[in-house]
Amino acid sequence: MKINNNFNSLKDNYLFATIAERVTAFRNAYPEKKLIRLGIGDVTLPLPKAAVVAAKKAADEMSDKATFRGYGEYRGYPFLQSAIAGYYADKGVKLAEDEIFVSDGAKSDAGNFLDIFGTDNTVLIPDPVYPVYVDTNIMAGRKIVYIAGTKENGFLPLPDSQTKADIIYICSPNNPTGAVYTKDGLKAWVNYANNRGTLILFDSAYEAFIKDKNLPQSIFQIDGARTCAVEIGSLSKTAGFTGTRCGYTIVPLELKAGSISINKLWYRRQATKFNGVSYIIQRAAEAVFTKQGLAEAHTNIDYYINNAAILRDALTKKGIWHTGGENSPYVWLKCPGGDSWKFFDRLLTEFNIVGTPGAGFGSGGEGYFRLTAFGSREDVTEAVTRLEKL
Amino acid sequence: MKINNNFNSLKDNYLFATIAERVTAFRNAYPEKKLIRLGIGDVTLPLPKAAVVAAKKAADEMSDKATFRGYGEYRGYPFLQSAIAGYYADKGVKLAEDEIFVSDGAKSDAGNFLDIFGTDNTVLIPDPVYPVYVDTNIMAGRKIVYIAGTKENGFLPLPDSQTKADIIYICSPNNPTGAVYTKDGLKAWVNYANNRGTLILFDSAYEAFIKDKNLPQSIFQIDGARTCAVEIGSLSKTAGFTGTRCGYTIVPLELKAGSISINKLWYRRQATKFNGVSYIIQRAAEAVFTKQGLAEAHTNIDYYINNAAILRDALTKKGIWHTGGENSPYVWLKCPGGDSWKFFDRLLTEFNIVGTPGAGFGSGGEGYFRLTAFGSREDVTEAVTRLEKL
Repeated sequence: MKINNNFNSLKDNYLFATIAERVTAFRNAYPEKKLIRLGIGDVTLPLPKAAVVAAKKAADEMSDKATFRGYGEYRGYPFLQSAIAGYYADKGVKLAEDEIFVSDGAKSDAGNFLDIFGTDNTVLIPDPVYPVYVDTNIMAGRKIVYIAGTKENGFLPLPDSQTKADIIYICSPNNPTGAVYTKDGLKAWVNYANNRGTLILFDSAYEAFIKDKNLPQSIFQIDGARTCAVEIGSLSKTAGFTGTRCGYTIVPLELKAGSISINKLWYRRQATKFNGVSYIIQRAAEAVFTKQGLAEAHTNIDYYINNAAILRDALTKKGIWHTGGENSPYVWLKCPGGDSWKFFDRLLTEFNIVGTPGAGFGSGGEGYFRLTAFGSREDVTEAVTRLEKL
Repeated sequence: MKINNNFNSLKDNYLFATIAERVTAFRNAYPEKKLIRLGIGDVTLPLPKAAVVAAKKAADEMSDKATFRGYGEYRGYPFLQSAIAGYYADKGVKLAEDEIFVSDGAKSDAGNFLDIFGTDNTVLIPDPVYPVYVDTNIMAGRKIVYIAGTKENGFLPLPDSQTKADIIYICSPNNPTGAVYTKDGLKAWVNYANNRGTLILFDSAYEAFIKDKNLPQSIFQIDGARTCAVEIGSLSKTAGFTGTRCGYTIVPLELKAGSISINKLWYRRQATKFNGVSYIIQRAAEAVFTKQGLAEAHTNIDYYINNAAILRDALTKKGIWHTGGENSPYVWLKCPGGDSWKFFDRLLTEFNIVGTPGAGFGSGGEGYFRLTAFGSREDVTEAVTRLEKL
């Protein structure tokens, strides 16, 4: 057997695995210290009650021969596709059910979607950004070029005449910076992509955090996106599904590479290498998109957004430059001292707070640091008190 | 964007998608006909009660902040790893928990595992066999060679001096033939693999159907397997999880390519492209491996095995050559008339029975046909009555 040598080009560890290891080492050394976790973007509030009720009802159906479900549709159950289509209709986006592929989460789809594209594509990745885009393309051996998100461009880079790419990742609201593209910004990317025959992979995992009604929550709110874009969505942050696992990928029927339908190609990949999401979980996800489910989900989102406001206020008071946290659960700050892994270690050992070093999101993240608003109010308040001594 | 041209080398459709399309067309044309489905290997009996109770309890935990779970471990929750390790211990196989990777199903892992191996490996695939092995390697552009399962070798091919491969798939009990390797047979493969540095991917999805205590249920019951084999297991057929989704892959710590740990490489892949299985589903899976869960699961398995016996008796009476169905849910028969897709169409249109044409499992399956024992007793009895007119 011969291994895939592209793995040799990866950093030793996936970012959050590295952080988990450092945190575990610290906990083992200092079991008495109370750690506050504002690192990995993991939610802490419970699932919407509507989702729990639906999951339990579905579990009961699975215990009765008359209502038991075996293999589902490869794209997901029509009831969930229909619920997602309704969610998008409320944003003014019309989707056919066949365009919606239910998955076990945005990370899987972000990682797997490029299976259907050759290794001879040049991939453009914003820097800093969610590390999965980079690592999965390194694993496949694709050429990666970067476009810099900087303080100056508000961490929202735009294409220019130098930009040459076959596939582009856009994450908005951005992980880690919390920056959100305007409609004009996305329109610039859509025009670029349609002109060049480039594919946009639009990661909308944090769209539910957008409070400003002028900002786009889906790339399909932009004219022309249906011929150049795929959107990867997630219930992880929308409804606390990080441990429950459900997401979806939208592949418009108009999207083609030459004469080849990308929707058909992705279906072929999924039918061969995936067997769908648990019926129990798909019923829970369906319930998220009901009126009650969405109301409960947004109660939680508002709680996190208020956490972000508390963090932002504290940073402002300390005179630490920061952005994000208004239409996003992430607050992105300039590290006092500069080096982001040093700041990570200092926060961990001195203040017992876990954050995420900006360098983990790409070289453009060096000097910055990500705090998440997903903690409990008590933890966030306690973190702010501790940080007064910074 | 440039597509992965290897997709052009695939047949148009995944086998079971093709069958589903033909069945749907027939149903639309003849909505009044009662179809009996002995085609796709999908279970029909409900989940073990123990699993349902555990899933509902876990769902309740997710609705309470104190017991809510966010992201789990990439390898799966220790409680489930420990339950699987216990299940293997009862077969005399000792596993470290870090060797067990929980997944959303054997199909995903069978498809994804080769991500960590180069495209320059030659892959040996038995013919006939589960089509996922072939299609996923075509997608990646690997060279595939076949080894023939024939009536003469009992559909259990063994390596000889001509066999040259870097990676080998073995499925035992075999899908579709129902053939099961003896310990001597597996030992021949393990010796071959250790001598050549070849990897064995052992698919044990149907191991729970083995009633003959002399037959191995795990490749790790064979000395030497820990340095050459990975085992992919599933709860789909063991406990009716086809629509509930949970499986596991066992990667021994001793397994290396040169000095590189395959366990570490797979962990890196999973941490980057997967986020684990739903907590609710992992609790359901844990419950399957309790005394009560296994007893309930085996009540269902016995029911299916009795269905297989009814099918086998009917075929014997008709003088139709067949094998399998004793330690497996699949009965494999020689098609009256020869051509397996023609026999599929004849069974569908004349007898309103859905089976699976052998040709769908490779050219070596031409002339044969798979019937599954996963139907209800009523359906199997009715199918046997209808087949009397064959």
